[in-house]
Amino acid sequence: MSESGYYSQALHGPYETEEIGDLVLEEGGTLRGCRLAYATYGRLNAARDNAILVPTWYSGTHKIIEQVLIGPGRALDPERYFILVVNQIGSGLSTSPSNTPAPAGGAYFPKVRIGDDVVAQHRLVTGKFGLERLALVVGGSMGAQQTYEWAVRYPEMVQRAAPIAGTARNTPHDFLFTETLVEAITSDPGFAKGFYASPEDVREGLLRHARIWAVMGWSTEFYQRERHRTLGFSSLDDFILNFMFAYFRVMDPNNLLCMAWKWQRGDVGRLAGGDLRAALGRIRARTCVMPMTSDMFFPPSDCQAEWRLIPDAAFHPIETVDGHLALFGADQAAIAQIDRHLKALLAAPPGG
Amino acid sequence: MSESGYYSQALHGPYETEEIGDLVLEEGGTLRGCRLAYATYGRLNAARDNAILVPTWYSGTHKIIEQVLIGPGRALDPERYFILVVNQIGSGLSTSPSNTPAPAGGAYFPKVRIGDDVVAQHRLVTGKFGLERLALVVGGSMGAQQTYEWAVRYPEMVQRAAPIAGTARNTPHDFLFTETLVEAITSDPGFAKGFYASPEDVREGLLRHARIWAVMGWSTEFYQRERHRTLGFSSLDDFILNFMFAYFRVMDPNNLLCMAWKWQRGDVGRLAGGDLRAALGRIRARTCVMPMTSDMFFPPSDCQAEWRLIPDAAFHPIETVDGHLALFGADQAAIAQIDRHLKALLAAPPGG
Repeated sequence: MSESGYYSQALHGPYETEEIGDLVLEEGGTLRGCRLAYATYGRLNAARDNAILVPTWYSGTHKIIEQVLIGPGRALDPERYFILVVNQIGSGLSTSPSNTPAPAGGAYFPKVRIGDDVVAQHRLVTGKFGLERLALVVGGSMGAQQTYEWAVRYPEMVQRAAPIAGTARNTPHDFLFTETLVEAITSDPGFAKGFYASPEDVREGLLRHARIWAVMGWSTEFYQRERHRTLGFSSLDDFILNFMFAYFRVMDPNNLLCMAWKWQRGDVGRLAGGDLRAALGRIRARTCVMPMTSDMFFPPSDCQAEWRLIPDAAFHPIETVDGHLALFGADQAAIAQIDRHLKALLAAPPGG
Repeated sequence: MSESGYYSQALHGPYETEEIGDLVLEEGGTLRGCRLAYATYGRLNAARDNAILVPTWYSGTHKIIEQVLIGPGRALDPERYFILVVNQIGSGLSTSPSNTPAPAGGAYFPKVRIGDDVVAQHRLVTGKFGLERLALVVGGSMGAQQTYEWAVRYPEMVQRAAPIAGTARNTPHDFLFTETLVEAITSDPGFAKGFYASPEDVREGLLRHARIWAVMGWSTEFYQRERHRTLGFSSLDDFILNFMFAYFRVMDPNNLLCMAWKWQRGDVGRLAGGDLRAALGRIRARTCVMPMTSDMFFPPSDCQAEWRLIPDAAFHPIETVDGHLALFGADQAAIAQIDRHLKALLAAPPGG
């Protein structure tokens, strides 16, 4: 892993990395010596029944999860639980285009699916940590996709599941949205089919990518209420440049594209021959589905339709005007709602 | 006007053009010998009190208005009303970048505002047709922006107003969305700062522009219900290519950018020193505000907030999953709702 730059211990530490062996991918490629970067909070108890797994979202790492969801007195309380946050493949901390040597890295990096992440995490969870049960799997956005994949793929292991602002099967509309993100990057001549020297060469594409995120990530009410000013930005342009673009411009474009491809194709139905109903019917976890009310691409209606197919599930929309990016934690009231629902979920008997 | 190509009588006829003189624009430019292209349906009665004005939306012309809204038995019935559909400046039929000779045309075309269109239309309506009253001004999207501008700028002339799927003051969120449309086009190296030889040179940008429209123009339910298949397209890709891209690829990029710039800055508050409440308070027209329930960039909440500021207005959201692009008329039930509300509006006494 890099010692400096964005994907570093300096910016994201402390975290550990574990090699989980060669990972043969669903699409046919192989990640040789696949490494997962993770951070842990709290201690595993003697009964080994207090483990919580948190997979990460698009462009996010364990660091934002720690800042937004973990802490004493919170649902994810390190004094009560052993919390394991695993960075997804392509995140830049785990095996990714940006840290894989030639010829397997960069633009040559193979296609990865949500299922590949979950298989890799399963090796880590069972091999490295010897866990047989997870008290909870919880994640937002692509983390929700991984949460669903966990609950369907390993129903006997997952006692509780909390997919936040994400779906079990990606919708055509969400696929199209993500395609516009991809095109914002790949259309930049500086992208050079993935063979750029530095993210700086792709700055125009990354700025367009940031602007599309600004449209779809928040909501019309967010801007109407001037939440961007509340967050400390003097104008819309200031917000776009110094928040949205500042966030993405340091990231590796091939990493973002690896995650976007994976996001577009999230679908637990693949585990049941394409039958989403059958796949979700396998879930034994007590499940709490939490969309954001103002989410423009994982809207409540899409999450609700899936919730109906899960045997033992609650549906709790999180009231917020921050849209999908309420995940960033800028709306404390939204995070408080998530915390309350997670506490109730953890207090309830396990599913199955 | 061109005799062939997209902006032609062959594709859009029959229509007339009228020169309304030099138009000095709000931003300081001048359209010399400004021409408005329009189509009329029905006849002006002896009392001259049956005129309906319909301004057009982004990329649309009088032709789509005719197809979707006008006909015997409809609210806009040519047997009862004299219906005047005026193509907006930048539409490609009225004075536009694509039909203005050098050096004033193409990339050099001056910035135009919604108010400029309405002043130009006022000249046409009063000068060419000698009208003192309009029984109704009705328009969708940018047509709604012009409708609001008419009702605020000439309150004594507009007896009824029906802004559909549009706002009186554009929102920051909508501004940002439109900016992504602009960037999709201008980022294409083939755009060459506006000095392309043909729209074909900007095909990649126009395809990205079409794809962003596909995300924001319809809705997640539209795709979930596979409405794109219902409309005769075999897949998402087929729909994007043969409907969305087919629609935009023949249009002149500078024309689209002219309209987009105008759209972004629609704001009747300018007529009252920036005070939206004061501006909308001037409206004397009996008004019927009709957002589309699933509209992602002119959502009901934004339209409702403005509706509260209008003295004599009804608020009737149009139930549809077709989002903003329900304006295309593919959802017949949505158009039937609009028709019903317009009939009620026309049957009611005039405002003022």
